[in-house]
Amino acid sequence: MTAAEQIVSEMMAHDSMSQWLGIRIIAISPGNCTLEMVVREPMLNGFRVAHGGVAYALADTALAFASNARGIKCYSVETSISHVKTVEINDTLTTKVEEKSLSKRIGIYWIEVLNQRNEVVALFKGVVHRSDKNWLV
Amino acid sequence: MTAAEQIVSEMMAHDSMSQWLGIRIIAISPGNCTLEMVVREPMLNGFRVAHGGVAYALADTALAFASNARGIKCYSVETSISHVKTVEINDTLTTKVEEKSLSKRIGIYWIEVLNQRNEVVALFKGVVHRSDKNWLV
Amino acid sequence: MTAAEQIVSEMMAHDSMSQWLGIRIIAISPGNCTLEMVVREPMLNGFRVAHGGVAYALADTALAFASNARGIKCYSVETSISHVKTVEINDTLTTKVEEKSLSKRIGIYWIEVLNQRNEVVALFKGVVHRSDKNWLV
Amino acid sequence: MTAAEQIVSEMMAHDSMSQWLGIRIIAISPGNCTLEMVVREPMLNGFRVAHGGVAYALADTALAFASNARGIKCYSVETSISHVKTVEINDTLTTKVEEKSLSKRIGIYWIEVLNQRNEVVALFKGVVHRSDKNWLV
Repeated sequence: MTAAEQIVSEMMAHDSMSQWLGIRIIAISPGNCTLEMVVREPMLNGFRVAHGGVAYALADTALAFASNARGIKCYSVETSISHVKTVEINDTLTTKVEEKSLSKRIGIYWIEVLNQRNEVVALFKGVVHRSDKNWLV
Repeated sequence: MTAAEQIVSEMMAHDSMSQWLGIRIIAISPGNCTLEMVVREPMLNGFRVAHGGVAYALADTALAFASNARGIKCYSVETSISHVKTVEINDTLTTKVEEKSLSKRIGIYWIEVLNQRNEVVALFKGVVHRSDKNWLV
Repeated sequence: MTAAEQIVSEMMAHDSMSQWLGIRIIAISPGNCTLEMVVREPMLNGFRVAHGGVAYALADTALAFASNARGIKCYSVETSISHVKTVEINDTLTTKVEEKSLSKRIGIYWIEVLNQRNEVVALFKGVVHRSDKNWLV
Repeated sequence: MTAAEQIVSEMMAHDSMSQWLGIRIIAISPGNCTLEMVVREPMLNGFRVAHGGVAYALADTALAFASNARGIKCYSVETSISHVKTVEINDTLTTKVEEKSLSKRIGIYWIEVLNQRNEVVALFKGVVHRSDKNWLV
């Protein structure tokens, strides 16, 4: 296992919410990650489509994993998400992460959430504060 | 029950994710709502504090309830959230909604998520598209 | 002059863009400021109403002045703005700033831009990074 | 001239603020545009680097031109920008637009502002409302 994989394994092992969502780690590298999950009935909202919190939580986990995979503890400062396509029960969601900017203290990530037909369902932008603490793995 | 309360009751009855979060409706009026929930273990992340998706999902439910409570079906277009204070297990979270702008097609809501000490833990801004469909209740 | 006023005077004296906009400082205190300007012809866009950059630049100046007025050099990390009402030539715009959150490294400000009828024309949220450099005034 | 070029020519001819910024149109097509400008002294802020309003106004003009170039009148609903690299006097700024999502009523655009060394200086996301009015050109 690479250092990036070790950090994210450790994070995932303690991440109850990502486990509840059924998130699986497909690939990890410093500043990047690919995650996958299937939408189940408890994740629907009052319109009986996926709650906005589902794509958000998936993208937010991807933000945490991608940014922390560089070995520095990172904390979310500001995130935004546009829900552009309805997500249905049994849809498989995947994340596509791009690290758009990295300075000493700030990292900015663009994350697209795609469905099983490779259609974009949500557009997410995340800003993290890069602390002065390192992961010891 | 007012029309606003009827709409939101119906939404809540079908909203599996909000039920999983344990969201309780405290008050509903056109363009506004107060919700409450308690953070439980399955809602924690890899740092063993509340996952960012928890405050987001609570605020997103509040956005849906407040905007739809005016009787017009509304859909989220763009949302942003800043997580400004760590949320711990057993914290009670409440929403404070302000309808900042309302035009024929667009509504903008500012939602603060507070903890049991009345401290702001998250700042959320939501933009909804107001469709041409009404709720029939 | 208070320290906050001295810092902002110095910033304003060097701020060519704010001068071009005709921004006037109405009040300054640590974490807050009230600014005012009148929309002129060179600030219009292709629809012959105020360019979105006008309300943005006014709010961004307010963000810089309010956050730096605490005596620590602050830099904008992420900003968002919703233009909710058309701004016309000769409108007088004013800023209303609220400091929503302040931690060691991050400050979050909510800024409303109002016109002369006290109507909200733009809703702005700004996140700043608080550096480890102080203003020496 | 294509219809897209005609629409944007007409917008640009009336856009005083874009003219003041010295924006030049490099390319236009439906849903896209490339713009260029040079930062001059009146565009600096109190730190004597480009005011945040400069990259914002350039990106906002690009948003208007790209979205309207499809032939439907579009209005900005919500925009966000991260300023990730300092912009200096005499820097040449260019826009790179991606149309990320397009539905009947909503368009979402991701716009990067680059300098003459092809470095990203600002990351902009714009959401427009697509009205039911067409451009007649």
